Amino acid sequence: MIELRVYLTGDFSHTLWHPYYGRFMVEFYDTTLRDGSQAEGVAFSVEDKLIIIEELDRLGIRYIEGGYPGSNPKDIEFFKRAKNMSLETATVVPFGSTRYPTFSVDADPNLSALLDTGARTVTIFGKSWKLHATDVLRVTADENLELIESSVRYLVDSGREVIYDAEHFFDGYADDPDYAIKTLHAAADGGAKCLVLCDTNGGRLPSEIQEGVKVVMSTLLLPVGIHAHNDAGMGAANSVLAVQAGANHIQGTFNGYGERCGNANLASIIPTIQLKLGIECLSETQLQSLTSVSRLISELANLPHDERQPYVGRSAFAHKGGLHTDAIRKNRLTYEHIVPEKVGNSQRILVSDQAGRGTIMKKIEKEYPNYDKNSPQVLELFRRLKEAESDGYQYEAAEASFKLLTRKVFNGYESFFEQLGFRVIIEKFSDHTMRSEATVKVSTPEGDTIHTAADGDGPVNALDTALRKALEQFYPELRTVRLMDYKVRVLDTKAGTGSKVRVLIEAGDGRESWRTVGVSENIISASYEALIESFEYKLLIDQDS
Amino acid sequence: MIELRVYLTGDFSHTLWHPYYGRFMVEFYDTTLRDGSQAEGVAFSVEDKLIIIEELDRLGIRYIEGGYPGSNPKDIEFFKRAKNMSLETATVVPFGSTRYPTFSVDADPNLSALLDTGARTVTIFGKSWKLHATDVLRVTADENLELIESSVRYLVDSGREVIYDAEHFFDGYADDPDYAIKTLHAAADGGAKCLVLCDTNGGRLPSEIQEGVKVVMSTLLLPVGIHAHNDAGMGAANSVLAVQAGANHIQGTFNGYGERCGNANLASIIPTIQLKLGIECLSETQLQSLTSVSRLISELANLPHDERQPYVGRSAFAHKGGLHTDAIRKNRLTYEHIVPEKVGNSQRILVSDQAGRGTIMKKIEKEYPNYDKNSPQVLELFRRLKEAESDGYQYEAAEASFKLLTRKVFNGYESFFEQLGFRVIIEKFSDHTMRSEATVKVSTPEGDTIHTAADGDGPVNALDTALRKALEQFYPELRTVRLMDYKVRVLDTKAGTGSKVRVLIEAGDGRESWRTVGVSENIISASYEALIESFEYKLLIDQDS
Repeated sequence: MIELRVYLTGDFSHTLWHPYYGRFMVEFYDTTLRDGSQAEGVAFSVEDKLIIIEELDRLGIRYIEGGYPGSNPKDIEFFKRAKNMSLETATVVPFGSTRYPTFSVDADPNLSALLDTGARTVTIFGKSWKLHATDVLRVTADENLELIESSVRYLVDSGREVIYDAEHFFDGYADDPDYAIKTLHAAADGGAKCLVLCDTNGGRLPSEIQEGVKVVMSTLLLPVGIHAHNDAGMGAANSVLAVQAGANHIQGTFNGYGERCGNANLASIIPTIQLKLGIECLSETQLQSLTSVSRLISELANLPHDERQPYVGRSAFAHKGGLHTDAIRKNRLTYEHIVPEKVGNSQRILVSDQAGRGTIMKKIEKEYPNYDKNSPQVLELFRRLKEAESDGYQYEAAEASFKLLTRKVFNGYESFFEQLGFRVIIEKFSDHTMRSEATVKVSTPEGDTIHTAADGDGPVNALDTALRKALEQFYPELRTVRLMDYKVRVLDTKAGTGSKVRVLIEAGDGRESWRTVGVSENIISASYEALIESFEYKLLIDQDS
Repeated sequence: MIELRVYLTGDFSHTLWHPYYGRFMVEFYDTTLRDGSQAEGVAFSVEDKLIIIEELDRLGIRYIEGGYPGSNPKDIEFFKRAKNMSLETATVVPFGSTRYPTFSVDADPNLSALLDTGARTVTIFGKSWKLHATDVLRVTADENLELIESSVRYLVDSGREVIYDAEHFFDGYADDPDYAIKTLHAAADGGAKCLVLCDTNGGRLPSEIQEGVKVVMSTLLLPVGIHAHNDAGMGAANSVLAVQAGANHIQGTFNGYGERCGNANLASIIPTIQLKLGIECLSETQLQSLTSVSRLISELANLPHDERQPYVGRSAFAHKGGLHTDAIRKNRLTYEHIVPEKVGNSQRILVSDQAGRGTIMKKIEKEYPNYDKNSPQVLELFRRLKEAESDGYQYEAAEASFKLLTRKVFNGYESFFEQLGFRVIIEKFSDHTMRSEATVKVSTPEGDTIHTAADGDGPVNALDTALRKALEQFYPELRTVRLMDYKVRVLDTKAGTGSKVRVLIEAGDGRESWRTVGVSENIISASYEALIESFEYKLLIDQDS
């Protein structure tokens, strides 16, 4: 039985002092792109991954686990591209396992795949639970120790910094504490820089997590990390309690994405550690971008943002009951556990909502430094955003559409062409062949009307082709534009197939990429709107440059 | 500083013994119908409430908070009807506040409303935080103590059992511990039977919750309860840790419904306490109904069930990666923290593109126990899956389409109708109005050909409507089917707008929900395919049952 006296008091000022490292610093390790993409329905394209990495870097995340190159050949291309990114605080890390029992370290395909990524830090996991060594790997307990030590040593000898994930540590510890600790010694002997204790099955209780961390901290002189899952709904609590017990490396995913019930949610853990334990991890400005990073990741994962999510959900600071809202007006501390602006969120009274004007100002201050909150243009932009958002538009992941809207309000920007309508016919015949035909009508500022028709692979392609036919004679630079990703989200599921949909299009011209949004009950119309904006945006940036 | 030694060990057997009551019994207090309905988008009719009460009673919940009669006149009718229900274990409880400062107890409309319900147990909340007394109630600290004591005493003198909710207890305790404790003494002096410590703003840490419970337990000889919210993602953990510190009355809501980020989720807390702390609260059979009760409440709240929810979500025991599923087959303990059947849930193996024949076998073994890896049907299914997956199909999230495919291979299943093609026309006019029209041709096994046409809100809705027109005359049960979610994914981004897309449709009939998939370069055709399969699946399960 272990006593936890030192670490469990109501006063956390002492946690600023770390038993081994002096000042208590916490580093965050994001695995949204690897463990997070084990979630049902989550799959990121290489483009998505690169965008997310940039955002997490800006947020101040120390490590970003990018993929599992040994199990997924697609990740190899990704690591090639990630290597060329210039990041400020983050290191992109590949993930893999200890060597396969049937290979020597230098012949092991999994370890080679890790080295081939060229990353200077790599993470490998090994077995802490005897049951897994014998029943899954089919090796003896001692052989497992050797697998761990030799694999870590090989990577360290190859010049890599190694983070060791002790898979199922807490289950292994409950089953056979001595053996679980031995596996950590093996990793430490191999030269690991950090020992991450994993609650892989996600069912361990806070008290067990604290005991485990405490025992390891008192046994091994290495930084200790925590990797928690949410199978009992305690992923965030377990992570925070691990920090209170001395862990200073925290693995998790954004929005808690992950297999089964998900991983510990970094969007909950980061502000709790910073604002409630008082351990400074990010700058104030970085923390203020937490909500928008979390939303961007939802958009790219093509999942509805969980609006009840702590700190970053739309409902997190929403007040409904008359009693509460009255109290809130008298003193906002009365019903709010933190000031929502600290994490880039805002208070909502009534059912109406939206980002406050402060957030908008932040978004436009670079391009329009000479405006303040009460400038007529800012008020007009605010009004139009509110209207658009209540129609279902979302600009978090569609910055090109946001820029077009801003230009319209601030610069009286006019479109490069006017839409005069379209028609699409889609037919499927009894022999299962198909045909899609579109006609498009647009006019130029000079007053020319162009009417074109085209077939296509599907209705959006037919529209795209007909539209290019019409526009490329005036704007040949549109030839370089191509669609890179296309996402559709149903907004109000209650209306069935008649629901409003939001389409998000990512387009690029080989040099840069941008995203636009369209909303309609008609998926073709929403797609057309986003398509048109992606062309408009290209013309706009070419004109600017 | 308070030491928490006794309660924080890795061994919970001692928690079966309660310091005051001998054997440790835990009672659950559900407030889904009151605090839960403060959530955005949640509103229950009186009928809904009565159904939920019956289910919660059968589940073994001790108290069910039914409403706030003083603030909501509709609740008065509800309590009238609830009074006539014959319940086995549950008591339906009204909720209200201490008297208003401007009324004497016997003239207070809020206390009268509580008494008028005729309920033998009532719950009232009072202020523990000085800030609330002075800034919200506008009374002095001492007047607040008097409000609490006199209100509780009046209800007790009127023959009621009184549960006292100490609103903002933990915030009040952090601000002024002596005063917070004094408010509890006031309630105890008034004759309360139980003191419930509330983390009303939901932002307190586990360590603070434990300290608070411990201090109260050592100060007052009354049962202590916990009422936690989820604003830092720790509602369930805080509740369980409170129990480990000695609380034995737990308030929460099903599915964590509640204001802002919601209340502590009873669907997570109940199985954790029973299965992990070993405190028996419900019978085995009652616990097995947990998943269906949780789903029923989602259904009545008219919200999509949170499938990542611990214990009771569809994803809670779903396994994806080839590595995990291989291990699961060898020993299911390896990646499952509890046996899912204990809470009425079940294991799901997801079919992903890396799945081998082992995964497929595991998926079909329930329905087809007499086949092995080398049966011709299994080989044929495997071949068709590989082919479909290389065409872009993904069955991991479309188990209904997987079942239809399996039926075709194993049982020579034939469709309920044959598609003979469709046509869709989508027009957008220069005045921005739109029109979508679809025509559909299908034939029945009896040889009838049906040709229908319909307009719609968008092309998929027009197709859906035309298809229903055609099919409902033969299969009226399709009227209950409605689309619940609709997702589109571009597969090969290099082909631009001519890319292949995968459409995933979730449909339901009010009792269960299922997902189907369609793939095509043509988004309308892919949607149509998934739509048709969702109707096919409905007809298939109705035929099976």
